[in-house]
Amino acid sequence: MIERLAILGVGLIGGSLALSLKQQGLVKQVVGYGRSKANLAEALALGIIDEAVESASEAVRNADMVVMAVPIASMRGLLAEIQPVLSATAVLTDVGSAKSCWIEDVLSVWQGVWPENAVPAHPIAGAEKSGAAAAMADLYVGRKVVITPHEQTGASALAKVTQMWQATGADVRCMSAEEHDQTFAWTSHLPHLLSFALVDMFSQRQDVERLFDYTAGGFRDFTRIAASDPTMWRDIVALNAPAIAEALSAYQQQLQTYANLLEQQDWQGLSDAFARAKATRDALLP
Amino acid sequence: MIERLAILGVGLIGGSLALSLKQQGLVKQVVGYGRSKANLAEALALGIIDEAVESASEAVRNADMVVMAVPIASMRGLLAEIQPVLSATAVLTDVGSAKSCWIEDVLSVWQGVWPENAVPAHPIAGAEKSGAAAAMADLYVGRKVVITPHEQTGASALAKVTQMWQATGADVRCMSAEEHDQTFAWTSHLPHLLSFALVDMFSQRQDVERLFDYTAGGFRDFTRIAASDPTMWRDIVALNAPAIAEALSAYQQQLQTYANLLEQQDWQGLSDAFARAKATRDALLP
Repeated sequence: MIERLAILGVGLIGGSLALSLKQQGLVKQVVGYGRSKANLAEALALGIIDEAVESASEAVRNADMVVMAVPIASMRGLLAEIQPVLSATAVLTDVGSAKSCWIEDVLSVWQGVWPENAVPAHPIAGAEKSGAAAAMADLYVGRKVVITPHEQTGASALAKVTQMWQATGADVRCMSAEEHDQTFAWTSHLPHLLSFALVDMFSQRQDVERLFDYTAGGFRDFTRIAASDPTMWRDIVALNAPAIAEALSAYQQQLQTYANLLEQQDWQGLSDAFARAKATRDALLP
Repeated sequence: MIERLAILGVGLIGGSLALSLKQQGLVKQVVGYGRSKANLAEALALGIIDEAVESASEAVRNADMVVMAVPIASMRGLLAEIQPVLSATAVLTDVGSAKSCWIEDVLSVWQGVWPENAVPAHPIAGAEKSGAAAAMADLYVGRKVVITPHEQTGASALAKVTQMWQATGADVRCMSAEEHDQTFAWTSHLPHLLSFALVDMFSQRQDVERLFDYTAGGFRDFTRIAASDPTMWRDIVALNAPAIAEALSAYQQQLQTYANLLEQQDWQGLSDAFARAKATRDALLP
């Protein structure tokens, strides 16, 4: 049971976590902090939080669980703000899409000494919608949450964060932050970059409206993630740049291979490549 | 009113057209031909066709409307087969995803003289499912059908094909075959190639199963078209290669621009690029 849960950033991700824990009676009180007063008022009105406060330090005071659900580029500043008032027994966790950077942020603010109650985590939940109004108690049912403990993370804090996410219905996994960042560079960050790139390329053509007029369902699906938040994705790319650059480079080589097959009119080679892709997609994402 | 409609290739595309026309009482009799006897029997059982025949020439005999809905690489052989028995007054049309190649096929079989009743056409309808069993009478409602008349296509045949597709609820457009092939190289063929390339790249990694385990909704959407039929897409790429190679090259340049932004840590430039893409996607595919 969490006595006082502080949610810093009450959007889709933080708000859904609070709703789920409340619905199951696993939290006594939820206090929320966020930059947008309108969003915070809505979170209060919707019963996502019980109390809205004006500063992060006020939110974490007396909290036994602190969840940082702000954009990843805002983590370090917020960590510096809460560090002086955070209770030594409070568990501190986050929901960022890149993990090595949060570990660096914490180490920077804690001057190189990892606090044993800090637990880096990343719930894998789509964020097409945002804001407290989009929060849903069942957002995490069947979704994965990846925890990337620092080697100084204590077993008790790790267990508390694991249990909290399992209570939402999530499938909790553990791996190193480096492994996490490489994995998601391939499975999430690269596809976002590729989808942005295609629409960006279209947007710079004079006939962009005509082109879009002749798109169909395939294009719609392929480019859905190009409607994601540009600032959030800039931050993810900036804070996981080495792994993303490596994945991008591999993909560029793959495209050059295809360009060569076209140039050489090697239709059998192209057919084999497409068949490999289809077989993999069908087998692993049925 | 169509007296006798011959559908060569009774799959999703040809079957849905027949169903729609039948439902509206716009066709008296539908005769179907296809390589798979099982599929043809199913089409008959489902009432998509009224008669199943064993050869294409038998199907087109006495037909006043012939729709070729076979894979685009099979068009030329089939055209050669039906040319001797096709009535001079019958309208001949197709549903291929690339149009210059069908025009070349017809000209080749008709020895350089375009038959005035031949009308190249391309209904823009997804083909995730295939076969007669997947056919739906309302598949074309609100979809686009692009007709790319040859300059020798007669006004009467053009009007008949236009009216046939409009009757299915489709939004019929006209453009040149060259314009069609360039447009769809960008809006459809390139995205398919890019999606195949990503999954193909994954498929060649030893940790492919683990990677797929950590994919989420964005990846699923981005790669849905990588589950398309490899042979069909090989044919489309082979038969529209110049336009696709040009679009692919432009995309490779776009990716290199992004790779440079990453290399230079130009996060503002990347954020601007993402914002351009999102604004375009939001405005044109709301």
